[in-house]
Parts: sequence; structure tokens; C-alpha cells
Amino acid sequence: MMVTGRNETLGRRIRLGMVGGGNDAFIGGVHRIAARIDDRFELVAGALSSTPEKSRASGEALGLPRIYDDFKEMAIREARRKDGIEAVSIVTPNHVHYAAAKEFLKRGIHVICDKPLTSTLADAKKMVKAAEASDALFILTHNYTGYPMVRQAREMIAKGDLGAIRVVQVEYPQDWLAVEQDFKQANWRTDPNQSGAGGSTGDIGTHAYNLACFVTGLEAESLAADIQAFVPGRQVDDNAHVLLRFKGGARGMLWSSQVAVGNENTLRLRVYGEKAGIEWSQEDPNYLWYTPFGEPKRLITRNGAGAGEAAGRVSRIPPGHPEGYLEGFATIYTEAAEAIIAARDGGLAPDGVVYPTVHDGLKGVQFVAACVKSSSKNAAWVPLEG
Amino acid sequence: MMVTGRNETLGRRIRLGMVGGGNDAFIGGVHRIAARIDDRFELVAGALSSTPEKSRASGEALGLPRIYDDFKEMAIREARRKDGIEAVSIVTPNHVHYAAAKEFLKRGIHVICDKPLTSTLADAKKMVKAAEASDALFILTHNYTGYPMVRQAREMIAKGDLGAIRVVQVEYPQDWLAVEQDFKQANWRTDPNQSGAGGSTGDIGTHAYNLACFVTGLEAESLAADIQAFVPGRQVDDNAHVLLRFKGGARGMLWSSQVAVGNENTLRLRVYGEKAGIEWSQEDPNYLWYTPFGEPKRLITRNGAGAGEAAGRVSRIPPGHPEGYLEGFATIYTEAAEAIIAARDGGLAPDGVVYPTVHDGLKGVQFVAACVKSSSKNAAWVPLEG
Amino acid sequence: MMVTGRNETLGRRIRLGMVGGGNDAFIGGVHRIAARIDDRFELVAGALSSTPEKSRASGEALGLPRIYDDFKEMAIREARRKDGIEAVSIVTPNHVHYAAAKEFLKRGIHVICDKPLTSTLADAKKMVKAAEASDALFILTHNYTGYPMVRQAREMIAKGDLGAIRVVQVEYPQDWLAVEQDFKQANWRTDPNQSGAGGSTGDIGTHAYNLACFVTGLEAESLAADIQAFVPGRQVDDNAHVLLRFKGGARGMLWSSQVAVGNENTLRLRVYGEKAGIEWSQEDPNYLWYTPFGEPKRLITRNGAGAGEAAGRVSRIPPGHPEGYLEGFATIYTEAAEAIIAARDGGLAPDGVVYPTVHDGLKGVQFVAACVKSSSKNAAWVPLEG
Amino acid sequence: MMVTGRNETLGRRIRLGMVGGGNDAFIGGVHRIAARIDDRFELVAGALSSTPEKSRASGEALGLPRIYDDFKEMAIREARRKDGIEAVSIVTPNHVHYAAAKEFLKRGIHVICDKPLTSTLADAKKMVKAAEASDALFILTHNYTGYPMVRQAREMIAKGDLGAIRVVQVEYPQDWLAVEQDFKQANWRTDPNQSGAGGSTGDIGTHAYNLACFVTGLEAESLAADIQAFVPGRQVDDNAHVLLRFKGGARGMLWSSQVAVGNENTLRLRVYGEKAGIEWSQEDPNYLWYTPFGEPKRLITRNGAGAGEAAGRVSRIPPGHPEGYLEGFATIYTEAAEAIIAARDGGLAPDGVVYPTVHDGLKGVQFVAACVKSSSKNAAWVPLEG
Repeated sequence: MMVTGRNETLGRRIRLGMVGGGNDAFIGGVHRIAARIDDRFELVAGALSSTPEKSRASGEALGLPRIYDDFKEMAIREARRKDGIEAVSIVTPNHVHYAAAKEFLKRGIHVICDKPLTSTLADAKKMVKAAEASDALFILTHNYTGYPMVRQAREMIAKGDLGAIRVVQVEYPQDWLAVEQDFKQANWRTDPNQSGAGGSTGDIGTHAYNLACFVTGLEAESLAADIQAFVPGRQVDDNAHVLLRFKGGARGMLWSSQVAVGNENTLRLRVYGEKAGIEWSQEDPNYLWYTPFGEPKRLITRNGAGAGEAAGRVSRIPPGHPEGYLEGFATIYTEAAEAIIAARDGGLAPDGVVYPTVHDGLKGVQFVAACVKSSSKNAAWVPLEG
Repeated sequence: MMVTGRNETLGRRIRLGMVGGGNDAFIGGVHRIAARIDDRFELVAGALSSTPEKSRASGEALGLPRIYDDFKEMAIREARRKDGIEAVSIVTPNHVHYAAAKEFLKRGIHVICDKPLTSTLADAKKMVKAAEASDALFILTHNYTGYPMVRQAREMIAKGDLGAIRVVQVEYPQDWLAVEQDFKQANWRTDPNQSGAGGSTGDIGTHAYNLACFVTGLEAESLAADIQAFVPGRQVDDNAHVLLRFKGGARGMLWSSQVAVGNENTLRLRVYGEKAGIEWSQEDPNYLWYTPFGEPKRLITRNGAGAGEAAGRVSRIPPGHPEGYLEGFATIYTEAAEAIIAARDGGLAPDGVVYPTVHDGLKGVQFVAACVKSSSKNAAWVPLEG
Repeated sequence: MMVTGRNETLGRRIRLGMVGGGNDAFIGGVHRIAARIDDRFELVAGALSSTPEKSRASGEALGLPRIYDDFKEMAIREARRKDGIEAVSIVTPNHVHYAAAKEFLKRGIHVICDKPLTSTLADAKKMVKAAEASDALFILTHNYTGYPMVRQAREMIAKGDLGAIRVVQVEYPQDWLAVEQDFKQANWRTDPNQSGAGGSTGDIGTHAYNLACFVTGLEAESLAADIQAFVPGRQVDDNAHVLLRFKGGARGMLWSSQVAVGNENTLRLRVYGEKAGIEWSQEDPNYLWYTPFGEPKRLITRNGAGAGEAAGRVSRIPPGHPEGYLEGFATIYTEAAEAIIAARDGGLAPDGVVYPTVHDGLKGVQFVAACVKSSSKNAAWVPLEG
Repeated sequence: MMVTGRNETLGRRIRLGMVGGGNDAFIGGVHRIAARIDDRFELVAGALSSTPEKSRASGEALGLPRIYDDFKEMAIREARRKDGIEAVSIVTPNHVHYAAAKEFLKRGIHVICDKPLTSTLADAKKMVKAAEASDALFILTHNYTGYPMVRQAREMIAKGDLGAIRVVQVEYPQDWLAVEQDFKQANWRTDPNQSGAGGSTGDIGTHAYNLACFVTGLEAESLAADIQAFVPGRQVDDNAHVLLRFKGGARGMLWSSQVAVGNENTLRLRVYGEKAGIEWSQEDPNYLWYTPFGEPKRLITRNGAGAGEAAGRVSRIPPGHPEGYLEGFATIYTEAAEAIIAARDGGLAPDGVVYPTVHDGLKGVQFVAACVKSSSKNAAWVPLEG
């Protein structure tokens, strides 16, 4: 499937609102592009900042039809409009996710929420309840699950191409916090009140953990973590070394770091089973290495020879024409759109539609909590549960 | 500059029409995504196929407000509307480019045209005249010039980082025509009546040639070409070996191929000067290798350390978050938007705005003509002129 | 320094014997080539197998002047000859190392011993005593320390180019034991009586651990290990996940595996400090990535721009002419030769000469013991000491 | 076959002499290591320089038993000795090759000669005659043909894995002559009296040309060359752009350069046939990319899965343990040894033994001559013959 625009089934764009994502934000702009790429959404309302003036200025700069001072007002008023928003993107710092999401969920407005789910485990559990109590959908933007070759890897493992999984190696090093930084993106991510107890574990470790589980279909049972804050004065971890034990016997290692100088955004997953191994890197996302035991390594390319249906349905352009981060992110939005359209008539999303849910989000927050707890007990094994 | 949406200056999206790009087309869908990514355009009208029924069906599938049976009708009627299209994307097979473009140019509607400019040199010259006679802008989508690291390379050479250029190596191998194919995309590209006298030279050689000239700022003086049609029965070249001589003394080699098995879309440029060399590959577009003589090779990354202003202003997201083909393509649209907005008030595009023009398009068609002529004379040197 | 042959100082080749390394061995042949490459040794005697017939047949095939039925006989008789061997290479399975080495050490014959030092910690301690009691030198062939770019990395860290080290990531995955195997090389390596308590930890984990310590100059304080034997019936680990804590505060992860399908011999080291990061891979050994924080990544090449003295003195040929595993191994022999020549006159090895010692060997065996102990205690932290 | 030493068949090392290769030479040292690696040769005599004092000093530094003032004296006296040399390595600048080689050939001493064969076409023809008139063997060290994966590529093409060859792309860029240099290695290579009429074409273009022919089994029919001397004052080409036409219809491009800044020694070959394509790079020599049309790209590794007999018989160590330039060079020596041993009894070299001959050398000199001639005629096509 070449996903290149609305189609007859869809009829019109889904009306979308946004909470957070003002002028000096990073991820808000990403969500907006992602929502546009496949033409399923139209951003029509926003409360883009907790500061009303900034919200207004940012909304005007984007030409938003309806601009609100705060998210609660937006939820109330949009819910009352006939042409009100059908979905909202929540792209604030972590500690606001729950407070914002619940206002929309309880009014039946679908929520597309950035990760991690929340800044605390308590909030995460409340978010699950709020989502379960609502008719609205909850989509968590673990955007790396939108990459076609990640889908390819998942499909191959599900089909048994690797046999029983033995070893999972996942890592997510960055380097932008290798020194003390002082700007908005850095500040809230290193403030435990906004970010949560985890630093690198929350910001990127949850991506790595989610990716490993998404691709392998495995569930982690327990972990042992040695986390550090290398930069003097830092209040949350900036590096984490984690051992994983999965149900069924597979073992793993997870490394997240924001002080690994020379790494921009090097999320990488390697999975080894009885019959084969696969390797994928986010910085070179259109390729998946696949080696059946005793055979030459093969390079499977997005939309190219060797790629299967799961990758094909989320690819837009031919092999050799690289898709990137924004397209992977857009796929989450497009999957959400498919589910939202289906939900209009009370139906389920079409076969093949996959997106991270509130339950995946809870698992991520449990992961962070377990890392912090294990590390405080000298890397003792800690179960990955509530 | 993070290019993430319309802004106050812009006020509203530019109204866009499209000629060609129906259901079974490839490049039309790419243009549509590209036009959306930075939110400067809204597609509101189309004549998406030369077959009225297909045009209608395709337009409806996309939810287009206004659908036309043919491009001339669209040009006439849109020109008369107050809310008519301000720009049109022409994404038909090559032989239709001129006939379509002139209808819009003469009515003051800006033209964004796919490459190569035309299928014949005669048409190309007429297109130049039509563009020069019009107040409207003419933008040619040599999309590879939109990649940030291509802009980076160009800026470095212009600044003198390489010193005087000596050697240019450019190649564009693909493999999809290594065997006889029979589907729409293959058929018109191998039909000289639709594609023009060049096969690989026209379809991808023009990209390679344009890229080399765009990055180096050099102008080719003459070429010697040995072109082949390896697949039995093929009427246009599917492989071309070209020697280049540039004004000022630099020399080059250009290879285009659609039979190089194992190459998906491997456009690659290497430039060597007195002081340094650079290397860039389209399939790994976020990176530029740069080696000053006698120093270690350096990896300059999009929006990362070492990248300059020219790359930064066309980047959307941080380093390590790969941008791809669609974002590069979108940049051409966004540059066009900047120029179109400026033109509304009779102004020039802001500083830094760059896009391929009708003159670049003429050079591309001259390149194809020279390749064919040189090859017919046993690879004699042929000047690159009208 | 281009090391290309004996020189006047040396006068003649060092007379070398070999224990182990018969026809069906792998590492014996490697040692023989390594000893020849820089022309400092001549192999003149051998007890190439514990089976006298095989020892004889193998020795004759190699044209050895003196062939012995067992190593003790060789030690005794060579020690008595005026032209007896000056050094011996011990290339047997691990459990024989100590018994063989002590016979030569006590007779003043230098020992070049394959790793790991011994199969048991008790033997390792006895080996240290035997070496300390002897005038002869003891060289352990942790051959990866012979790679020029490993030397380069070590020199850069020692000079402070990285600042204080924070994170060490070292991994050594292979895949040849992903299934049950039945041939000599596999059999003794998976037999705890011959190999020792460690499987992958002993065979390759010790290399990884040694490399990390050699390059960083750090000493590990404690480790926590989760080791597995994935292949049914296997008596030693074939995969190990290890957390490391270094004196001074750096932290590390070490992964060794012989079941990671798709990895041939992928030893890889990454070190991150306050100021910069470096990355090196054994399968691409002529290159070292170096990224100072906030600057573009640089590719330092063996004997090329950016490479320093430590790498230069162990390089033989110009950059771009790849040296490989055998040259790195040869460097250990050549360093040994430099030390042996100096020792003839009771002198010390020249400045810059570096080779792994019996103490490094002890640390390796301690590493294996600690991994096994930690894992038996559910990955509790275990100190890295006797 | 693991080639790790002399064997019973061989009995003893072949006695070798050397002409050229004194202290300040590069390639002499390479030949000496190459001759030692597989233990088939013992260097026992030398005329290492045309300056008697240097010859003596260099020979003594190497501990050579017999040192001569000039090669003719060496040929005469060694031929008379019972234990005289059986083979000689000629590693002088090009213009001395013929004069030296003929003295040994006419006395029945096998010649192992560095490339290019000679500095002039006239000498090359005389060399062929001298070799044909002699019972001795003539081996030309086009060492890149010794790489296992080059053998693998050749075997695959010979077996028909690629189908009929269409396109050959070969390039050999370096950068060490990008500026004026003044040291021995640079000086003779840029002096037409010593090097011959070709600069980069002779020094490295001949390697590239030989490699293309060796791997594909094709013979070039004609070429068109545009050669340049970019560095002011340079008397021979330092960059060459060459079009090739092969018998049977395949076409090629060849680029040699010594001014391509950022390239150390980047010999690279790509061959595309009707059914598949292959790619190989000298700087990463243990890997061969192979793509059957319509299937994923595969990475064939030296001694690993997918590698065939031709590569296996010239590999020494397991996959993942990189062999390099010296091992590839050693293979030429070992192939020569196999042929020399067989010749002792008047026999032919065993099956599978392959090495470049005097005829390959002639073709290389013809290639240089054709490049110079074509370029002087404005890149007209010139046949590749005498």
C-alpha cells in the first residue's frame, strides 16, 4: 500500500487539536508534520503552551482557527462544538500528560499522546483507568514502531523466521546531555518533577524497551539496573545499564545514555534466535540485516526484495528512496487515523493496523520505576510489574 | 530554521492544482506529500489523467474540490476564479510537460514541473521562452538539490573549502530495468515518444548532471558519451558512460544505469579539489564526508556539528533523526512557496532560497541531446549547448 | 616504524619451540604465521600434540628440525642444547597451559602463551608464581592488543583526549556455537575440564575484558553477570551479560556470545569520556572513530592522518592497505622479540614495547571466575579479585 | 585449505633473491613479508639497490647471507652455485624491470616481478620474448588478484552466476599526490623516465585494469581516455578517466587518480550482469556483495557462508578474522611457490593455482600506452593491442 492521501473511505480529514507544542518545543512540530504527511488530519485547535500569551502567539503563527488558553477549556469547548476536534495530540512535558489526557478522554475525544506515558507510576495507572473508561482511543507515540523495517522485523519473528528468541540487545545512546545544558528541551528532561524519576531511562530508555518488546513479542519479567548521573548536579540518570530477563527464557541487555559522545540518536536493536539473527539501526532505518544461521547475511530493504507485507503497508515510496523519522512518526498517526475512522461506526481498526497503547505506556513507566528501584538496591533483580 | 508550518507572514496555504498524478502514477503521490510536509500548499484542483474517467476517479479518491477532464480546461477555468489555483504541479510523462506548462504560464499561474524539463530539445527551448514571457515562476523538481547535505556541499565549495575543483565523479545506478518490464512506470520511460531520446540519461542522468553542476557551481563545456541499450528490444539507453569537461579545467565522469543489479537508487556524488574532497550518497543522505588534504575524514551530519547555515535552513529535525527523500522533495516545494509568497507583492524570494529553474531544465535536456549525439558519433566530444 | 625484518641489532632469528598446534588445531597455525611475519623467530622444535604419533606427523609436515613426544621432554632437552630454543609458544587447550609453561619457565625459556591463561583460578595463581620465580619472560597472546588502532585508542585516552572515562561498552559476539557442534575446536571449548568454568566468558569474554582494560587503563572493581547456556546440553556458558564497575567511577557493559547468529567475530569497543568518544571494531580494524564533543566524527586510519606514534610503530604498510588479524597477532610476537633481545643482555624492553603479561592473564581468569560466581548468586556484584 | 606452512611435499623453502627493495623502498618490504607468510621462501641473496653501498647496508640490515653490488653479478654468480637462488623478486622502479629480469630468465631463475611489467611498450614486448624463451616461470605481482574475495568473484562469474556481463565499473583513487611531493616513492613514480609514460595509469590504473579483466574473464577491445596532470609541473598523469569496450559487448568505466583527496587506496570493482551484480572494495577486502536480480543483497565473507572453493583455498583463517593486503600479496607468492615446486620436476602447477603472467603484464603496458595515445587524440577510441 502506497499511503499518499485521504481516500474515498475517509472522506475528509480528522479534526485534530494539540496540547503543548508551542514555539520553542521540538516534538510538537514533529507531531504536526507527522499528522500532515498522509493527509488524514487537519489541525484546527490548540492550547500550545501553559502560558496563555505563548499559546496564543504560537497558535497564530501556525494559523490555527481556534486557540485556547488552557487544555481544559479546549476540551470543554471543543466537545460542545459540532465541528469540534475528534482527536487531540498531547505533546507537553511528561508530568502534564495525565492531567491533559483525562480531560479529553472523558469527553470522548481520542488521545494521541507523546511518550513516556506519564512522569509517575501512579499517574500511569490512572491513565490506564481513564483510557479504559472512555470510548475514545488512546495512542502512544512510540514512533519508532512506525518504521517499516521495524514492522518487518516483528513480522519475521512472529512468523518464526528466527526460531525461539535467545538474546535481545537494545541500545539507545545519545550525547547531547554529555555536558550541563541550559535550554528548554534539556531543562525539563532533567527535572524529576517534570520528567519523572528517570532521565535517560524515561526519555529514551522507554523507547528502547518498547522497541525490544514490540519487535520480539516478548514480555520482560524482571530487570537489574545500574544507573548513573555522570554530569555533576544532574538529578536524574543520564546513563543506564540494564539486564533483562524475558518470560520464556530469553535474556537481554539494554543501554540508554545521553552522555555517549559521538552518538546522535543511535537506537539500535539486535535479536538473536535459534535459527537466525536480525539487526536494525534507527539512523539507517530503511535496512534490516537478516542472517539465517550458516547462510550469508542479507540486506532486506524497505519496499525492496525480501520485504514482506507488514513493511509494505506502511511504506510510501520505492526502495532506495529513503524514508526517515518523520515518515515513521507519520505512520503512527495514520494507524491512529485508520482506527479513528473505524471507531466512528463503532468498528475495529482494519487488519494489520498496529499502534502503541496505554498499556504499552504503563509498561514503559514500570520499566523506569523498576530501573530506579533496582539501582537503588545495588542492581538487584526487580519484577516488571505494577 | 525548523520548517514546521505556515507562519504569520504566509497567512494561508497556497492553492495548488495538479496535472497528472492519477491512481497508478508514482511521482504524483510524492509531489502531494512534498507539498504538504511544510504546510504551505493545499491541493484544490486536478486534471490527474489524460483519460477523463481516470482523472475523475483519482481526484475523487483524493477528495479534490475541483476535478477537470483536461489540463487546458483547468488552466482556463482556474485562472478565472477568484479562489483559483496560484500554482500547478505538472507530473505527467515528459512529452506532456511543455503543452501543459504553457497553458498555466501564459495565465500567470506558477508552474512546479517534474524533470526532465521536456522530451525534446525543441520543446525545452519553447518552455524557456514561455517561462521568460510569463510573470509566473517556474520551478523544476530536481528534488535531490533539496537535501540538506547537498546544500551543505554546495556551500562549502562556494566558500572555497575545497579549493579549485579538479575532479567530479557522479553516478546514478538503478536496477529496475535490468530485465524487460511491462507496467506503466516502465513503459513510458522506455518509449522515446513519451520519454524523449534518452532513457537512463533522461530519467536519472539529468538528476546526476544537475546535482554535479548544482553542488560544484561548475558549468560543463562538452561531453563524450558511450550509451547502451542492453535489454533486447529497448529503444532508449539503459546505461550511459559519460566523460565531462567543465569550464575552468575540471573533469568528470558520469554514469547512469538502470541495469546495475543491486542498486536501488544509488545517486552518489564525489568532488575533489586542490584542498579537500567530499562524498555524498542519496541512499544515506543525512551525512556528508569531508576530508581536508592530510587530515582525518570527517562526518558532517545534518543539523549536527560541522553543518552550516545552508543545510540548517532546510533541516526540520535534530541530527540522528533521519530526514529522507520526501523531506528533500518538500524543500523544493517550500522554496517555491517562499518565492511565490514574495512574488505576490512583486518581490524576490528571500536570501538563501534556491530552486532549479527552467534554465537548469534546458541544460538537462541539452545533456541528454549531447549524450545521444556523442554516442552516435562514437563518443566524440560534443559541446553542451543548444 | 616499518617493521619488515630482522635488523643488525637482532643479528639472527630467535629460536622458537611450540607446544600444541598440531594438524587439526587452529590457533597453532596462527601463531606460526605471526612469528614469521616480522622475521624475528625461527620455529625449530615442537611437541605439537599430546599424542606422540600426531606430534611427529605434524612436526614433519612442517619440516621441524626437532620433534618431541611431549613438552616436558622438549623442555629438558632443549634447555641442555647450546642451540636450544630460547622461547616457546604454548597453544594447547587451556587446561594444559600451566603444566606446560612451568617446565619452560623453570628452565629459563621464555613463554608465549595463548589465552586464557589457565582453565582454573588455582592454576592461574600458580602460573603467576612460576613466572615471577623465573628469569624468563611471560607473554600472553591477547592478540587484539596488537592492532595499531587499539594502540591508538589507548594512547589517546592516556593523553587525556577523552577526559575522565564514564562509560565502557565492549562486546564480543560470535555465532559458531549457536547449534551443537562436534569437532575438535568446539569440543574442547565446551568441555569445562579443558576450557575451564567459562565458555564464551573464557574463550572470548577474556579478550573483551582485557581489551577494555588495556585501552582505557582502568581497572574493574566488581561485576554482576547473568550467564546462560542456551544450547541444550551445553556445560559452559555460551552467552554472558555482564555489568562492570571500574575503579574511579566509570561503568561498563560487556557482552560475550557464541550464539549471536550473524556475528562472525565481532569484537567491538566503545569508550565515552567527558570530552570525547571512540569506537573500534575488530572486523574493520584499520579505523578508529573519534568524536570530540560538539565536533564532527573523525575517522582516524592506521598510518594515516590523525594516527599517532603508538599506532605508527606497530604499522607495517601505508594507510588504505589493510592490515589484519595476523599482523595484529604478529605484533605481539614482535613485541616479545624486542623484549627477549633486550633480556639477552639483562636489559629491559625498549620504550613503547607493550605486551599482555601473566598478571593480565590472572585478571582474565579472575574475570571468568567472577562471572560464574556472580551468576550463581543471581547476578550479585562480585569483586574482581583473587 | 589453511595455508600455514611448508609441508612434506615441499620439503624445504625455495631459495629467493631480491633486486631492489633497499632501506628506503616501500614495496620491497612488502614482498619480503609476503614471501614469509606461508613459509615457502627463504631470502638468501640480494642486490637491493643500484648504489653498491646502499645495497650492502640494506642487505646487512636484513641479515642476508649473500649480498651483491648489482643484479647482473648476482644472476651470474647465483646461477653457478649449487645452492643458488631458485627465484628472484624484482622490486625496482619500473624502468629497470626488463634489464634485471632478462638476466635471471636466461639463466633459468624464476622471476617474480613487481608491476607494471615495464616502463615502455618496447621493453614489455622484449620481456614477453625473454620469458617465452626461458624455462623459468614469470610471475607478475598484481597482488590484488590474491585476495580471496577477488577469487570468489572470479569463480562466480566463471560459473555464470551473473549471466552475461554488461557493465564493469572499476576505480582506483588515491590522494597522496594531490600536492607536489618530494621523496623517493613520489619522485620515481612521477618521472616518465623511470615510471613510463603513465603516472596514475601505470602505477594504479594497471592494477584496476588487471583486476577488471581477471575477475570478469573479459578482454578489452578498445578504450577512450581523458587523462590529466592536475598538479602544476607534473610530467605524467595524476588522474585518468577511461571508457572501455570489451569483446562480446560489455562496457566499462575506469578511473584512476592520485589527487582524489580523502581516498587512501580505494580500489573498487563493481560488475553487473544480466542476472546479478557484485561489488568489492580493496579497503574492506574480506567481503563481497552479491545481489541476484530481484533478491536481497547478500554479504559473502571470506571463509564464511556463501564462499566457494576458489576463495577457500587461498584463505588462512576463519571468517571475522580479517586478512589484509599482506595476505593477499602472500597468496601470489604461494601460488608462485606451488608452480615452482611443480616445475622442479617439469610439471605444471596444481589445479586452481593462478597468478598474473608476463602476458597480463604486457596487457597492462598496452593499457597505459593506449590511454596516453587516446588522450593525445582527444579521447578517440584506441585498440588495446600492440
